[in-house]
Formats: sequence, structure tokens, C-alpha cells
Amino acid sequence: MNITDYMQTTGRQARAASRAMARADTATRNRALLLIADAIVRDSALLRTANQLDLDAAKAAGLDPAMIDRLTLSEAAIATMVEGLRQIVALPDPVGEISNMKVRPSGIQVGQMRVPLGVIGIIYEARPNVTVDAAGLCIKSGNATILRGGSEAINCNRALAKIVAEGLSGAGLPAHGVQIIDTTDRAAVGALITMPEYVDVIVPRGGKGLIARLMAEATVPMIKHLDGICHVYIDAKADIEKAVPVAFNAKCHRYGTCNTMETLLVERSIAPAVLPRLAELYASRQVELRADPESFALLAGYPHLAAAAEEDWKTEYLAPILAVKVVGGIDEAMDHIAAYSSKHTESIITEDYSAAMRFLREVDSASVMVNASTRFADGFEYGLGAEIGISNDKLHARGPVGLEGLTSLKYVVFGHGEVRN
Amino acid sequence: MNITDYMQTTGRQARAASRAMARADTATRNRALLLIADAIVRDSALLRTANQLDLDAAKAAGLDPAMIDRLTLSEAAIATMVEGLRQIVALPDPVGEISNMKVRPSGIQVGQMRVPLGVIGIIYEARPNVTVDAAGLCIKSGNATILRGGSEAINCNRALAKIVAEGLSGAGLPAHGVQIIDTTDRAAVGALITMPEYVDVIVPRGGKGLIARLMAEATVPMIKHLDGICHVYIDAKADIEKAVPVAFNAKCHRYGTCNTMETLLVERSIAPAVLPRLAELYASRQVELRADPESFALLAGYPHLAAAAEEDWKTEYLAPILAVKVVGGIDEAMDHIAAYSSKHTESIITEDYSAAMRFLREVDSASVMVNASTRFADGFEYGLGAEIGISNDKLHARGPVGLEGLTSLKYVVFGHGEVRN
Repeated sequence: MNITDYMQTTGRQARAASRAMARADTATRNRALLLIADAIVRDSALLRTANQLDLDAAKAAGLDPAMIDRLTLSEAAIATMVEGLRQIVALPDPVGEISNMKVRPSGIQVGQMRVPLGVIGIIYEARPNVTVDAAGLCIKSGNATILRGGSEAINCNRALAKIVAEGLSGAGLPAHGVQIIDTTDRAAVGALITMPEYVDVIVPRGGKGLIARLMAEATVPMIKHLDGICHVYIDAKADIEKAVPVAFNAKCHRYGTCNTMETLLVERSIAPAVLPRLAELYASRQVELRADPESFALLAGYPHLAAAAEEDWKTEYLAPILAVKVVGGIDEAMDHIAAYSSKHTESIITEDYSAAMRFLREVDSASVMVNASTRFADGFEYGLGAEIGISNDKLHARGPVGLEGLTSLKYVVFGHGEVRN
Repeated sequence: MNITDYMQTTGRQARAASRAMARADTATRNRALLLIADAIVRDSALLRTANQLDLDAAKAAGLDPAMIDRLTLSEAAIATMVEGLRQIVALPDPVGEISNMKVRPSGIQVGQMRVPLGVIGIIYEARPNVTVDAAGLCIKSGNATILRGGSEAINCNRALAKIVAEGLSGAGLPAHGVQIIDTTDRAAVGALITMPEYVDVIVPRGGKGLIARLMAEATVPMIKHLDGICHVYIDAKADIEKAVPVAFNAKCHRYGTCNTMETLLVERSIAPAVLPRLAELYASRQVELRADPESFALLAGYPHLAAAAEEDWKTEYLAPILAVKVVGGIDEAMDHIAAYSSKHTESIITEDYSAAMRFLREVDSASVMVNASTRFADGFEYGLGAEIGISNDKLHARGPVGLEGLTSLKYVVFGHGEVRN
């Protein structure tokens, strides 16, 4: 197979299909989603057989247990996929909504209509559930999609591609509305991210290595997430009864997520009261604390204590490790955040109105919180209904990205024969 | 001067200044704008002397009259600049606005706050008025700015830079909030568009050659405008009394603007009635018509008639030339537009409700109109109050870009000590 030709053909087909996907009405797009859900239920044995081929190959290749786990399409995983599709059907249709319609002095009426982006390329790891999840969100938002899943899931993805194409055709939508790249050749990714004539945006879902590579090579714009170095700042005027559970939850609810707190900043005057109480909770989970000299002194005797190095302020641990620093107040806290944050999520714990307002306004991160755990930075918790990813970028979409992030606004003008003078 | 070092320093200074620019309140940013306006009035003789140096050099270098014209800072141009700044002061402040605040089942309240993008790089031609105009919009929207104007305007831009810095300082804002690249070395542009660590977005204002070069090299995202191949489609059910003035205005109001119609599509059954009437008007302006065979026949005897070639459908004439084609109906019109439009602005002339709704929904352009001249695709006509440019991109901002396009939305969360379960 000539990869360049194959990808050009795939792109051309996606672009052609995107017009029919965009003009399809809500009922048609929902019907396709329900047909896909039904077909997954019907073919679940077949899907598991295909998945078994992938699993056998993965085990033979010595893949690590975490990857095998993600690759596995259990009965429960299939049920979750199907339930996810049905939830997407229930979401309101973002496409076609018109807002801000205003009459202008010239007589024209101007507003903005929400429309699909066009063709979305999704690059992800060997997780077959993402194939269905991403296809579902793109169909719902009226986009055509090109999916590139991890090569270890190729058999399962092929089987899913057949089901998705069947669902699209059954609803009268073009089968090329969702295409899965049917090659494990890595050059396909290079082609996908450099054909802006056919692809409007790339959504990479994967680790830092993948994203860094894409950033260096892509000429198609990306909605991307790099890392989450999230901070909680406990202010002088914090309510300790809020500060302690929030700072515990932000670190210990889950360690491997991007919205987990990685650095705790504590104001000097409150630190002696708050740090020992937090230390008790962290000790119950064997969290290692990497402390600056001041917090180190206050934490003396903590069983998993280490001195923080400069590198700790820049590290996304994704592990039971927390950097801790005493600061002189909100300005020093915000300076630290400006210097080291990945602009993902930061939270201030305070009862001081003006401090809360300053933090909300001045901290330049995708999510800025008062008196809440950073773990809330999530599409479902925010009420988006679904999440295609979390964006660290500033243009287009910041923070959790739902269906709206897969659309844009065009201007619409209702006239009555007006001409410009 | 080492350009790399100079640009790194400029970028670092802009990033540092951006925090103070973003947190400044509305009154402070407006005060800076008014101080700049006053200083321009005070120093107008000085500015004109600096401009004369540029003009002398430009004339000695043999620049064409159109460029000399754009470079000239007349008294009227100075007055317009000052008036523009005062209009920007009067615009509502987009920064800090919170929308969509919702209470979630967890107890947190989530909404979105409009915030500055950070550092904006603007690259433009030798037009000193753009220096003030762009600086004004960036100050108003709370951004730090790096301006790179055409090298022919360097003396005038230096004088303006001094005035802008004085205005910023006078209002208590960092003088580095607006920096003008003080070198004519073209390598400075290459550096500016490849330092995403310091620059959040590039807004190029210039011809296609400039944009094409930037697109090939930039790693910083751009809000850009490539070209305007705009269409008017006169439908079978058009009101001829609207169709004729709109199609005349769309072509002849101004020839050199990006929202000027370049191709006219006319439905077959109405063409014999509408084309001769339009031809009379176009003839009065010596517009050359490049016609497909069917319209060619209907236009027989028109004094400036030529047969359209394939290339004509792809050409932005920016001149008194119009491509004309007869089509079978709305589907053929939309197919032609999908194939050849630059996705800038298209308008349908029709009294048919369903045709109007289909055109609005299905045509994938930044502005889609019914019964109005394409010339309305403009920030002022749309009521944005100001315009930094027009975007052909799909992400972030489409169509005319005003102050909002220089901002983005971050999530803000008001909590009460909530933790995630």
C-alpha cells in the first residue's frame, strides 16, 4: 500500500462526506448512533473474538499489563460503550443553533450559527472504546472523522469500523463519514497531521510523547492537552475545614489524572495549623511530600518527607507524590503558578472575597476555582455531557472540550435586499 | 544586533508585561488609550516629520504610488487614528465577563470568564495607522502586543512607539505592554512566528504573499485571512428588484476588498430576465464579464465579454472583472461554492424560505447571507465596533474579528469546599 495515496484518498473521502454529515438533521444523526449501538450489542461476540486476536498478539509481543488492560474489550466495556452512545443521543444537538441575532442600522440582521468544524482527525492509543466514543461525538456534532487508533487494536478497530459504517449507511449517511485508518504504518499519522486541505482539526488523545511529536510536525491545528501541573493555594483566610478535605481530595482521589494537584501552596500564617492536619491524611495513603525548607520544618517527623528541588515545581508526578511550598500570600502564590503551572487547573481556598476574585481573574489557567477540588475540572462534572478531551490551548477551546468544541460559529445575515453605501 | 537575542528579549518582556495588562481594570486600560490619543494630537508635527523621513526614503527607493499613499500620515490620517482610539475607549470591555454560570449536582457553580489571550503578535505592511489601531485593540482587550510593521514605516513607527509607551506608563501599565520591533531585519518576523512560549497568537495583516510565507513557517497559531472568492447566487425564486441592486453592489461598491463578489451564479430559469438588466449596470462601470457558455449566450453584445476558463472560478480579481455562470438550481450552486469558494462570504438572493434556510445551513463559509450584499461582511457593519481582521479559519474566530477574537474563555468554578467522590 502506498501510504501517501491511501491517506490522500481517505482525506478526500472524508471531505466529500463532511458536507452530508453537516447537513443531516438531528434525527438522522441520532438514528445512526442508535443503529451503531444496536449493532455493537448484536455483534458483541464477534467483537470479542477480534479483540482476542489483538490481545494474543499483544501478549506475544510482551506488552505491559496496563496496556493489555486498556486494550481489553470486556463485556462490561462493551456495555459502557453502548451506554455512552445512548447518552450522546440524549444530548442536545449543538448544530444549527443561532445566537446573538441583532438588527443593524443598515437593516440587515446578523447573528452566529453553530456549525460542524468539518473533518476531525483523532489519534489515540490502543483503546478500542475510544473508537466508538470519538466516532459518536463526531457524528453527533455533524463532523466527518478519520480515526487512527493504536496499531495493537487493529483487529478490534476493523470490526468496529464495519459496524459504524453499517450504522451510518442505515441512517442514510455516507459510510465515509467515519473512516478508520486501516494500516499500522506510522507514516499514516504523519500524513494525517499534514493535510489541512482535508482535515480541519486534530484531536490527539495520548501521552506526552505522542503530543510532543505531533506538535513538532503538525500543520493541521490541534485541540490538545499536554500536561496537568495543577496547584491548590491555601490562603491566609482559608477555612481549614474546607482546605483540608479539598487538598486531600485534589491529591488522593486519583493519582494518574491530569486534574490531580501536583503542588500545594500554603500561606505562611496558616501553614502551622493546616500542614500537620493534612500530613495525617496524606500519611494514611503513604503520599510522599517534597517540601520547601519552611514546609519541611513544619512537617518534621512525616514518614515520607523529602526536600523539594527546583525540578519538583515542574513535575507532573501522576503518583502519590506532592510538592509543598510555603508562600507569603496570594501574590507569591500567583507568581509561583505563573512560573510553573501548565495552565490546566488551579484552586484557591479562602473566605476572603477580594482574594477569591483576584485569583479567579488573574490566574491564567483553563480552569480556575475557589474552594473546590481541582478534580472537578472534567467535562462531565462541568455538565458538558461528554468530553472529547481537555485543552491546554488558549485559542478555540480551553479546558474540558465537549460537543461545542467540535463546532465553530459562522455569521449568518438575514437581509431584505440591502446594499452597502 | 543579534536578532535571536533581541526577539527572545522582546518576547520575554511581552510575556512578563502580559500579566499586568490582563489584570488592569477597565478604567486603567481606557486611561492609557486616551493618553495615547492626546499625545498623538500633541506630537502630530513630530509624527509628520518622522513620516517625512520614511516618505523621502520610499520615494528615493522608487516605491509605487499606492504604497506611498498607504505610508503617508496626513493630518486627516492622524485625526482618524485619534478618533479610532476614542471609539475603542467607548466600546464595552470584553474582559472579565462571566457567562453560563450553572449550579452542578455536586454543588459547584461553573461558568466561563472572558480573558485576554496573552501576547499577540501583529505583522503588517507599511501603514503607520495600523500601529495605533492594533495597539489600541490589544490594550483594550488586556493583551500585551508585539508589532511588526513594514520596514518602510520604521521612523514613523518609532515615534508612535514612544507615544504608546508614554501612554501606558502614564496609566500605570508596563511600557512593554506594547512593543514595536525596532529593526528592519526580516529575520525578526521568522523569530516572532516561532516562539510559542512568548506569543499566543499571530494576526497577520497583509497580502497573500505574506500570509503564505507565514503559514509555511509559523508554529504560533494564527488568526488569518487568505483570500475572498465570494459568490452571489440568484435563485429561481429571487425577487429581481432585490437581486439586481445586490449583485451590482456586491461587485461595484469597491473592487479591492475581500468581501467583493468575484463569481455570480444565476439559476437557469431566471437568467434571461436578470442577466441583461445586470449587464446594463455593469456596463456603466466597464466591468468585464467572464461568462460560461450559457451566460455568454444571454450576454451577447455586452461590450466587455469574455469566455470564462476554469481558472476564473478560482480567481480573486480585486478588479472590475466578474465571473458569471448559469446553474440548474441551489444544489448546483452550492456544489460550485463548495468546490471554488475561499469560505469567506456567500449570499443567496431568493424569496423561497426553504432555499434560504438550506443555503444558510449548508454553505460552509465564515459569512452566509440571504438577500444582502457580500460587502456587509465587515466588523463595523456587524456591530463589533472594531475589527482586527477577518478570519478564514474555522477554529477560534471565523469572519470579522473584533475585541472578542482577542480573548478566550476560561472556566471558573465557585465552590464551597466541595470534593469529588
